[in-house]
Amino acid sequence: MSRRLLILTDGYHDSHTAKTAINAIRYKPEEVVAVLDRSQSGKTCQELFGLGGGIPVVGSVAEAPGANTLLIGIAPPGGKIPPPWRPIVLEAIARAYDVVSGLHDFLCDDPEFAAAARQSGSRLVDVRKNDEHDVAQCEGFREGCLRIHTVANDCSVGKMVVSVEVVQGLKRRGIDAKFVATGQTGILIEGDGCPIDRVIGDFVNGAAEKLVLANQHHEVIVVEGQGSLCHPRYSGVTLGLLHGCRPDGLILVYEMGRTTIHGMEQFPLASLETTRDLYEHVAGVLHPCRVIGVAINGGRFPDAEVAAERDRVRQRMGLPVCDVLRHGPDELVDAVLELRRQLKK
Amino acid sequence: MSRRLLILTDGYHDSHTAKTAINAIRYKPEEVVAVLDRSQSGKTCQELFGLGGGIPVVGSVAEAPGANTLLIGIAPPGGKIPPPWRPIVLEAIARAYDVVSGLHDFLCDDPEFAAAARQSGSRLVDVRKNDEHDVAQCEGFREGCLRIHTVANDCSVGKMVVSVEVVQGLKRRGIDAKFVATGQTGILIEGDGCPIDRVIGDFVNGAAEKLVLANQHHEVIVVEGQGSLCHPRYSGVTLGLLHGCRPDGLILVYEMGRTTIHGMEQFPLASLETTRDLYEHVAGVLHPCRVIGVAINGGRFPDAEVAAERDRVRQRMGLPVCDVLRHGPDELVDAVLELRRQLKK
Repeated sequence: MSRRLLILTDGYHDSHTAKTAINAIRYKPEEVVAVLDRSQSGKTCQELFGLGGGIPVVGSVAEAPGANTLLIGIAPPGGKIPPPWRPIVLEAIARAYDVVSGLHDFLCDDPEFAAAARQSGSRLVDVRKNDEHDVAQCEGFREGCLRIHTVANDCSVGKMVVSVEVVQGLKRRGIDAKFVATGQTGILIEGDGCPIDRVIGDFVNGAAEKLVLANQHHEVIVVEGQGSLCHPRYSGVTLGLLHGCRPDGLILVYEMGRTTIHGMEQFPLASLETTRDLYEHVAGVLHPCRVIGVAINGGRFPDAEVAAERDRVRQRMGLPVCDVLRHGPDELVDAVLELRRQLKK
Repeated sequence: MSRRLLILTDGYHDSHTAKTAINAIRYKPEEVVAVLDRSQSGKTCQELFGLGGGIPVVGSVAEAPGANTLLIGIAPPGGKIPPPWRPIVLEAIARAYDVVSGLHDFLCDDPEFAAAARQSGSRLVDVRKNDEHDVAQCEGFREGCLRIHTVANDCSVGKMVVSVEVVQGLKRRGIDAKFVATGQTGILIEGDGCPIDRVIGDFVNGAAEKLVLANQHHEVIVVEGQGSLCHPRYSGVTLGLLHGCRPDGLILVYEMGRTTIHGMEQFPLASLETTRDLYEHVAGVLHPCRVIGVAINGGRFPDAEVAAERDRVRQRMGLPVCDVLRHGPDELVDAVLELRRQLKK
């Protein structure tokens, strides 16, 4: 039975908090029946999120006939399910929907949800659940596989989107490329990967290494980055992932107009130059690596302003620069292929 | 009932693998009844480990009358209990000993151990078990508390010993100082702390921050470091801890004579200068911080060679340098107090 998604975002439609919903609609629109938001019922996804065309926004589970899976569409800090959502989740379970969640609080650990699911036969799918228990070995990386990694000066800037778009661009050039997902949304879209931020600290580097080992039969892999080395909350995960996958090249992603760490406005964002230097310094401890391009997330600005930003950043950084959703990823794809030529991979 | 330890090291008496045993003997000798090593039975701890005086090494649980607690005395990579130890652990449980373990594989998740403990009334104490589930907030640090952190170019170089000795030295000067434990051995010695390498990736920074918040009523805290920013396996934990506790000053610890990462000989160790620059760069992203002194672990060398090394490193680094177990920690204590004066804390 194919997956038919009803995506729950109820009350959270800003692009940061609802990023799981928005990217499921962007990359799996054929699976999405509707979005459930009681305060926005009657709109289309295009009106609510700026993408997704005529996919309807509905006000209840009953209004999405044909759906068979409820997807929790938000990723709040701390990862807890909002209490007003409980009756909606319970109704979906009562209708024998599968429920898919990327939250840190597991559905299957919730006694009420678990009991209801046992009764109806629902499957509770906690995407972040993992049993990673191996330290990194630093052995067995295949020389011929080029490893690219997306990094950033903050979380929620679009590293996953850039990773997916660059892989699609590489495939269009005939390259056997693979998007390696490390977060719940990426795993949902790609169908495999590892929820790296949920792995026990000692095994984060090892879990990242295993992702490379499992995917290095491809010519190029693009490993989705998480958090930021500059982020007060998530820098440990970011470094474990960076050192575990030991990339050959980095793509630096940022959101145009953002000036402080998202949700922690007391921290000014590091400049692109500072961020580049930090990543190259830290990654270089284990494997030679440099930033090969910059991806702008210009979503909040008109075309002309993003074009001007692109020119400025090209000048400043001396690197290929693009907004993958606006300009396509070709300039970054070229940078990846140029690195591949240089390294003879 | 006071704790009377029988320490199990059976077959693992090198100073890296048996570091939990050795440091329990060093800092809690009054609690140690005996060490259990079937291949070394009849020796004293002094003969086997070079410390611990006449504490006997025995060949069975029966030979340690008066003990009431079996301590698993090793910390192998990956953290699994050696299979030949199972009958020993089961015998201790049968005698109603508590069993204390810092391994990643929890005793209480082992069906055979758990069943035996239920029968005998033993407590299975898994020191690494935790329920940390909070992200860092970057709020509420007390200005008046000086935060010191021990860091290194590798794991198992003696960061815990340096932390404990510097705190003892500060206390001898009348300073209200606190050793903040972050590993199983430190927690065993100090009686509190957080097993930071066992925390879920997303919450490592947050757990480290909570350690500061819980201890910042002291004048100076010395937060035990873990792993190394240069370590292929553990760098993620190291950075989460560094960014979570946001130290004012770092003490850089290294083992004299070591040239490669312990257990991963394909990786040459970074120089002290390279290590210092890396830590100052990465820590400085969130909080101004510098290396204020260097601690030599000269355990494998005679006095004269350590003295010569000390002079060389003082010259090279322009910093206070000592081997805390050989020279005492006073030079590092002076460096901490000088930083405190400079920062007016």
